[in-house]
Amino acid sequence: MNNKLKIAYQGVPGSYSYQAMHEYFGSDIEFENKEFFSEVFKEVEDGNVDFGIVPFENSTTGGIYEVFDLLVSSSCSIVGERCIEVKHNLMGIPGATLESIKTVYSHQQAIDQCSKFIRENGFQSIPTTNTAVSAQLIKEMQDINSGSIGSEYAASLYGLKIIKSDINNFFNNITKFIILSKKMSWDMDSDKISMYFTTVHKPGALYHTLGTFAKNGINMLKLISRPTRDTPWEYSYFVDIEGNLDHPDVKKTLEELEVSCPHLKVFGNYKAHNILG
Amino acid sequence: MNNKLKIAYQGVPGSYSYQAMHEYFGSDIEFENKEFFSEVFKEVEDGNVDFGIVPFENSTTGGIYEVFDLLVSSSCSIVGERCIEVKHNLMGIPGATLESIKTVYSHQQAIDQCSKFIRENGFQSIPTTNTAVSAQLIKEMQDINSGSIGSEYAASLYGLKIIKSDINNFFNNITKFIILSKKMSWDMDSDKISMYFTTVHKPGALYHTLGTFAKNGINMLKLISRPTRDTPWEYSYFVDIEGNLDHPDVKKTLEELEVSCPHLKVFGNYKAHNILG
Repeated sequence: MNNKLKIAYQGVPGSYSYQAMHEYFGSDIEFENKEFFSEVFKEVEDGNVDFGIVPFENSTTGGIYEVFDLLVSSSCSIVGERCIEVKHNLMGIPGATLESIKTVYSHQQAIDQCSKFIRENGFQSIPTTNTAVSAQLIKEMQDINSGSIGSEYAASLYGLKIIKSDINNFFNNITKFIILSKKMSWDMDSDKISMYFTTVHKPGALYHTLGTFAKNGINMLKLISRPTRDTPWEYSYFVDIEGNLDHPDVKKTLEELEVSCPHLKVFGNYKAHNILG
Repeated sequence: MNNKLKIAYQGVPGSYSYQAMHEYFGSDIEFENKEFFSEVFKEVEDGNVDFGIVPFENSTTGGIYEVFDLLVSSSCSIVGERCIEVKHNLMGIPGATLESIKTVYSHQQAIDQCSKFIRENGFQSIPTTNTAVSAQLIKEMQDINSGSIGSEYAASLYGLKIIKSDINNFFNNITKFIILSKKMSWDMDSDKISMYFTTVHKPGALYHTLGTFAKNGINMLKLISRPTRDTPWEYSYFVDIEGNLDHPDVKKTLEELEVSCPHLKVFGNYKAHNILG
């Protein structure tokens, strides 16, 4: 009998999503990859997998609004988060060196994010469908003049060696991934709540809503506003707060918001994962 | 003597940035393209160009935090905005049809955004450095079996015909671009103000700050929070409000924020551009 957890992730083997999945769940899992965020949500909703994992926010490129929308429309809950530092590496076959490499292959975004390093070394760059495809290609080519750019996981998956690590133009590129479950659950350690609510578009509407958090002593970790697409002049707010759903102050806050906000939905209560001091 | 406006944009000819630049400034301009957002800011700061244009936010992928950070650190101001709908098109050489095309070339992101259309038509997809490079490639190949995916501007720039328009998986993919100037300026028509401020990390800090807007009757259009990188436990808020810097209520609000917020910076006051109802 197979008791392994089954996970759906968006991306490909060796991608940063794949890395986040393994960092969160370990290696003793079954997993399947999906092309679209919506397919991961559906696999979770349909009970085909135990959990899903999708990116939620990146420190350089911002929040992924498509995932925000799926959280609103789906029945999935957030039961955890994992932050990973997106660190690109130059990798090649055994024998390849910084001097032997002439051409690098990777997803265009990774090429762009490492453009300074590529230029300084005079490499030619060739785009591929994703970072893992480029690693696979390098493995097949067996050419010391060709390298791939991607995650440590991609190197390990395709038996490549890392020639130079941390070659990004900018450091501190963090992506936060969320863990999705069909059922909302939390425990005593859960210290972060993600939710969304809407307000009407009039001066002070948000102010009065935030007053509910403030007077109950609830600390806000994140607040992102967006115009609500279906209802003109209504605004949606995606909010993270500190706290546990069993705490009386949190319960009181949610009861009050339920009365004052046209829409309110708690996405989940889980343990925060912080990798920066 | 040359009196044409000189513009710096981030991207390549035929890209969506290039389209936004032409929609905003018209065709009678001189322009230069830059690889990095920071290079556009620098060209504007150094007075090498009259204006810069960079993307600011996308309706699907969210706010571009790197640009937010540059607005905080640079001396550039926002003097305008332009929203464009990112509409991908399949294009080919004269004679190419939906039936003749077998392979499509484009930036991987455009390929991903049109994956349903590509799959339905059984096309093979090959990534290129950007959408404009793929259009140029198709022009050079002169092969009715090969197509490119990109903007109408790319088709027009490379003399390709549009075989099928609006092939995105999702519609309503809007990108907002901002116009940068070395000098802050606004006029009577300017009805939107972009700014940022910080608060200390304690319950109610944001609530009390928003009270300043509410009691002065200022309507908030957007609010995005981020942890301030350099100062732990301090939060940054990127805010758009309705109003004009010459209006007494706006002046009063800013004076009060100046006193209560550790940091406050007005990025600019400009005319809002809305393309959705």
